[in-house]
Amino acid sequence: MEDGVDHLAFERSKAQFDVDEMKIVWAGSRQEFELSDRISRLVASDPAFRKDDRITLDRKELFKNTLRKAAYAWKRITELRLNEQEAYKLRSFVDQPAFTDLHWGMFVPAIQGQGTEEQQQKWLPLAYKMQIIGCYAQTELGHGSNVQGLETTATFDPKTDEFIIHSPTLTSSKWWPGGLGKISTHGVVYARLIIDGQDHGVHGFIVQLRSLDDHYPLPGITIGDIGMKFGNGAYNTMDNGLLRFDHVRIPRNQMLMRVSQVTREGKFVHSDVPRQLVYGTMVNVRQKIVSDASVALSRAVCIATRYSAVRRQFGSHNGGLETQVIDYKTQQARLFPLLASAYAFRFAGEWLKWLYRDVTERLQANDFSTLPEAHACTAGLKSLTTTATADAIEECRKLCGGHGYLCSSGLPELFAVYVPACTYEGDNTVLLLQVARHLMKTISQLGSGRKPVGTTAYMGRLDQLTQYHSDVKKAEDWLKPNVVLEAFEARAARMSVACAQNLSKFANPEEGFQELLADLAEAAVAHCQLIVVSKFIEKLQQDIPGKGVRQQLEVLCSIYALSLLHKHLGDFLSTGCINPKQGSLASEQLRYLYSQVRPNAIALVDAFNYTDHYLGSILGRYDGNVYPKLYEEAWKDPLNDSVVPDGFKEYVQPMLKQQLRNARL
Amino acid sequence: MEDGVDHLAFERSKAQFDVDEMKIVWAGSRQEFELSDRISRLVASDPAFRKDDRITLDRKELFKNTLRKAAYAWKRITELRLNEQEAYKLRSFVDQPAFTDLHWGMFVPAIQGQGTEEQQQKWLPLAYKMQIIGCYAQTELGHGSNVQGLETTATFDPKTDEFIIHSPTLTSSKWWPGGLGKISTHGVVYARLIIDGQDHGVHGFIVQLRSLDDHYPLPGITIGDIGMKFGNGAYNTMDNGLLRFDHVRIPRNQMLMRVSQVTREGKFVHSDVPRQLVYGTMVNVRQKIVSDASVALSRAVCIATRYSAVRRQFGSHNGGLETQVIDYKTQQARLFPLLASAYAFRFAGEWLKWLYRDVTERLQANDFSTLPEAHACTAGLKSLTTTATADAIEECRKLCGGHGYLCSSGLPELFAVYVPACTYEGDNTVLLLQVARHLMKTISQLGSGRKPVGTTAYMGRLDQLTQYHSDVKKAEDWLKPNVVLEAFEARAARMSVACAQNLSKFANPEEGFQELLADLAEAAVAHCQLIVVSKFIEKLQQDIPGKGVRQQLEVLCSIYALSLLHKHLGDFLSTGCINPKQGSLASEQLRYLYSQVRPNAIALVDAFNYTDHYLGSILGRYDGNVYPKLYEEAWKDPLNDSVVPDGFKEYVQPMLKQQLRNARL
Ligand SMILES: Cc1cc2nc3c(=O)[nH]c(=O)nc-3n(C[C@H](O)[C@H](O)[C@H](O)COP(=O)(O)OP(=O)(O)OC[C@H]3O[C@@H](n4cnc5c(N)ncnc54)[C@H](O)[C@@H]3O)c2cc1C
Ligand SMILES: Cc1cc2nc3c(=O)[nH]c(=O)nc-3n(C[C@H](O)[C@H](O)[C@H](O)COP(=O)(O)OP(=O)(O)OC[C@H]3O[C@@H](n4cnc5c(N)ncnc54)[C@H](O)[C@@H]3O)c2cc1C
Ligand SMILES: [Ca+2]
Repeated sequence: MEDGVDHLAFERSKAQFDVDEMKIVWAGSRQEFELSDRISRLVASDPAFRKDDRITLDRKELFKNTLRKAAYAWKRITELRLNEQEAYKLRSFVDQPAFTDLHWGMFVPAIQGQGTEEQQQKWLPLAYKMQIIGCYAQTELGHGSNVQGLETTATFDPKTDEFIIHSPTLTSSKWWPGGLGKISTHGVVYARLIIDGQDHGVHGFIVQLRSLDDHYPLPGITIGDIGMKFGNGAYNTMDNGLLRFDHVRIPRNQMLMRVSQVTREGKFVHSDVPRQLVYGTMVNVRQKIVSDASVALSRAVCIATRYSAVRRQFGSHNGGLETQVIDYKTQQARLFPLLASAYAFRFAGEWLKWLYRDVTERLQANDFSTLPEAHACTAGLKSLTTTATADAIEECRKLCGGHGYLCSSGLPELFAVYVPACTYEGDNTVLLLQVARHLMKTISQLGSGRKPVGTTAYMGRLDQLTQYHSDVKKAEDWLKPNVVLEAFEARAARMSVACAQNLSKFANPEEGFQELLADLAEAAVAHCQLIVVSKFIEKLQQDIPGKGVRQQLEVLCSIYALSLLHKHLGDFLSTGCINPKQGSLASEQLRYLYSQVRPNAIALVDAFNYTDHYLGSILGRYDGNVYPKLYEEAWKDPLNDSVVPDGFKEYVQPMLKQQLRNARL
Repeated sequence: MEDGVDHLAFERSKAQFDVDEMKIVWAGSRQEFELSDRISRLVASDPAFRKDDRITLDRKELFKNTLRKAAYAWKRITELRLNEQEAYKLRSFVDQPAFTDLHWGMFVPAIQGQGTEEQQQKWLPLAYKMQIIGCYAQTELGHGSNVQGLETTATFDPKTDEFIIHSPTLTSSKWWPGGLGKISTHGVVYARLIIDGQDHGVHGFIVQLRSLDDHYPLPGITIGDIGMKFGNGAYNTMDNGLLRFDHVRIPRNQMLMRVSQVTREGKFVHSDVPRQLVYGTMVNVRQKIVSDASVALSRAVCIATRYSAVRRQFGSHNGGLETQVIDYKTQQARLFPLLASAYAFRFAGEWLKWLYRDVTERLQANDFSTLPEAHACTAGLKSLTTTATADAIEECRKLCGGHGYLCSSGLPELFAVYVPACTYEGDNTVLLLQVARHLMKTISQLGSGRKPVGTTAYMGRLDQLTQYHSDVKKAEDWLKPNVVLEAFEARAARMSVACAQNLSKFANPEEGFQELLADLAEAAVAHCQLIVVSKFIEKLQQDIPGKGVRQQLEVLCSIYALSLLHKHLGDFLSTGCINPKQGSLASEQLRYLYSQVRPNAIALVDAFNYTDHYLGSILGRYDGNVYPKLYEEAWKDPLNDSVVPDGFKEYVQPMLKQQLRNARL
């Protein structure tokens, strides 16, 4: 293999569709495509953003490197006068977790969402110019999922018109906030509001944490970094921090007062702004997470797909080339459903963006009717897509055999940096149970004539769905969108109904709920999978230009749905939605679909339009020139600086010479 | 929480069985228990073996640290005159991958297994005293799974009575061998034997790689480290290496000649030692891998179980304590099957040890009849247990919420260091397909009256198993070992039979096999799960002393089997082995079994008898004193050395002061 040659050219020539048009479908619009394309090249071509050195830096060097990149990125953003969207893209293509993520992604939105007009006017300009840097300090050493159980207190002192922020116990130490450990000057700190001995629950407070002069923590404040996390570079570029308060005073007007206020007299009052507004922010944050899932997943799939076409193993006849491992049906059965999932999550994310806009408009018009459903649905999709993506990245790594275990494959770091998405912004199991609660509520309200809306609308057809039996007779029947959709609706509906029936056997509903948690979580998964399948199908009902593009998406949609059906066959069979014969027809159809994807596989991952810089993987190189580059890269390891390694003389030599007895070890 | 207090004492007091007796069951025998107990304490109490500093060392420091520990371990082993078994234990409790693993685990066994008497007499004494250090150099940059496709050549030169070892292409570079990169003086190198232009396939050769004087690679030899791997410390303590030969000459008698020889005249001859002997070695290596799987899995489960009892979240009434997360049924449904799997794999490993002894004895008596079955069975169990263990470690990490993502939880490193077990010693998918081939062969030979042996014996009852319908009527019926066993046998048999029937539809059997790979792999999984279930059941038929011990194991055995049944419900239903009602009775029984494990959970993980040193996890501490120790540990991170981090002045200060324009970044 030589440099400058496209070793995957033959694979690319096999594509049966217009890749450039698919790039636009993937990006969401031509404008989005051009934006991403431009900014990703900008980052990739700037040596200041190189990241291949990240792996061998120690914690301090790594962190310093984050600070440099963040400052440099900000410099470029201002120099180039990038708008908000462009700046966001640039930060994401820099591809290194940094305190700025929390500043822009959590601190600013918290003030926007929960601050009064006045508070916004005071704090946002400072934040926008990065004259202050903020973090989001909610989680404590002892309290994560249970936000209502936080222990930090904010006690109103009417004498001075201040709140006293305090950490009464060790477990009340703030723990995890990104950017807090070493950088943030301010934080939105969540604490129990105490007035006159009465507890008014958890609220957000803007607290200055460090001096703007010497960057030391302010009096009464203890801050540190919580230490190393999973992986090599990965999230260790981030200063997740700990924080303790010893009776720290802040002015009353630093409580975020959009929804509730504390008056000068110490009265706790609710504004007419509804509490539900807060849900709007959660919908927004989680919608971003779903779209990030499709990005992380597609990166992993791109690497594994390209390498599977480069890698050859077995099957050589008369000394000819061996078989490309992508041609093995096991490799296809493991890989192609992940490729399909990447597209599926992409469209689910796109739809969630619409949902967020819809919810926001309704909120402004005081229409809260869709909010519970929207909230449950984003919670569920966050859980579903992040769990699937984390598992998929690791599967992609395994699909690359031994070489996937090298950092130069990019996959270990992608995994390590991605997995916390299963935990932050709501532990995925806890979220599924929220979805399940919503489903049970929806069912219980059916009797009272309340019509289920949005993604739960199918529950309105329970009578029909509980009667349903699939009428699939031959494998191709499984290609019909309605056939698939109905099977997924019936399965989800029946699993929820079964839970509801079992719940009704308990005298105490909450006890019943606790007893049946595991079943409820499974019903929630079925519901969420239905959403993704249905949004993929809806996408296909839109106008999709470009030669062969729609056909490819149809194949991927079928693969997504049928591979799920195969994986959860037990659900479909035990609820009687399909029979065993129909299940095996689905597998048969799936095999055929894999063979249809095969010639298009490389082009389908090219459509993600990732630069080699962003992919950060030798196995996933665009040109497929894997082996020479792996070899080249190996020599860069610090261990190869010297022929005889440090420590050999002291430790190994004496062993070989049988002189250990006298050695000082 | 305070030091010196056992915060899990109450949990321990709830145990309904004799933990000390369970420790002996887990260890395999009292003698094994005492050995492990003694050696693990020896390692834990010696500060030279501390490992909590590992996370923040850079590659060179980390590697030097490996060399020191390996030398120190060897010093202690000789000083204390430890026998082979003790030395092995000591190395494993040191818990840091090192070149010595390959020396003892692959290099020495290769010579023992493939070397002639003469070769053994020459090389083994040197290796036993570590006067030479060896590696196992098989894999190449371009060839892993397909060993027969290796490209390195060993060409016989009759003039000088030597072999010329050569790397003809870049892809023929040896790549991955542990210990090779920086340390090994010798290697067993696999290469194609070429005599007089004729290719006699792949054989092993003992090749000296480095000078015993100055440790430099010998002339014609290029060696390097292949670079960083997954995780932080993890496998980066190991010098996996690359190796190229430029016409390197070795004496003829350094080809491992137990099975085939090259004579002085250049004649290639087979000895009367059967080729199958090599399989014996593979059975042995893979049996160790299965037993290591139970160790890795049990470590993760121990951490997640203890922390789940410490961690409280939600459910506080009137400001009282919150609910221990181990009491949530979702937590139980995720965790307890993993606990059961740890025990299941333990007993499977124990049985494989017996199988290896049995095979060895038979081989010595020239009985090869059980070898194919034993080989398939160890391949399958290697694949099954390592895949399950890798997934389970990550699940345990997620079960710990955010704190599981900290290195101080021990779980990230445990995962990163464990996962390659899914790839080395046979890629798990490739191994499953070997099992499938064996199953298809077994079925095809049934007609000719060949009686299936060992773990495939149930195939002899195909008539009965294809008629089978479970007669479970109530949930408790699922507690009967025979009921479970038959369901697993029927499912496995029918999946294999279905594959065989589909295969028979193809004119070209190999084409059919390739087309049906994915189904075949699933049939192989079903077969392997049956083996583990049946070995667990067999274990329970032995005499098991100790109050309540057998009862606990019965519960775990049922959980192992029924949770698999639940997970693979589609298999059981689609093959008609059970009906939906019976499937839901199994789930019901499972819920009940979880509640039976709950009070015993902590004691069941105590029975693994791991020291805090070996666990290496703050979340998994024996005393449950999690929060103060997490807090303490955080401060040790290098980032906490200074209040204001390195880089702040250069990069962040100018940002805050709006002076970036002039900054040099
Ligand atoms: C990389 C990273 C970055 C983060 N950044 C921030 C940040 O910037 N700011 C911030 O405030 N926080 C941050 N966090 C914290 C994060 O939000 C929490 O870790 C998360 O909310 C999960 O909570 P937990 O860790 O308490 O998990 P726990 O709630 O302790 O979960 C432990 C286990 O208990 C189970 N469980 C808990 N409750 C229930 C229930 N009711 N029913 C059933 N099962 C239950 C869970 O499923 C899980 O298996 C971050 C975390 C990580 C890992
Ligand atoms: C940490 C570590 C330590 C190691 N130590 C050593 C060592 O000491 N000495 C040594 O010699 N080697 C060592 N190895 C190498 C190891 O043995 C190989 O990586 C392993 O054999 C897998 O081969 P591969 O990497 O070529 O995978 P590949 O065969 O390239 O696999 C890639 C993908 O192709 C699929 N595939 C391949 N063939 C088939 C097929 N016929 N049918 C269906 N699917 C197929 C696989 O399932 C996988 O998904 C080590 C590897 C690691 C990761
Ligand atoms: Ca350093």
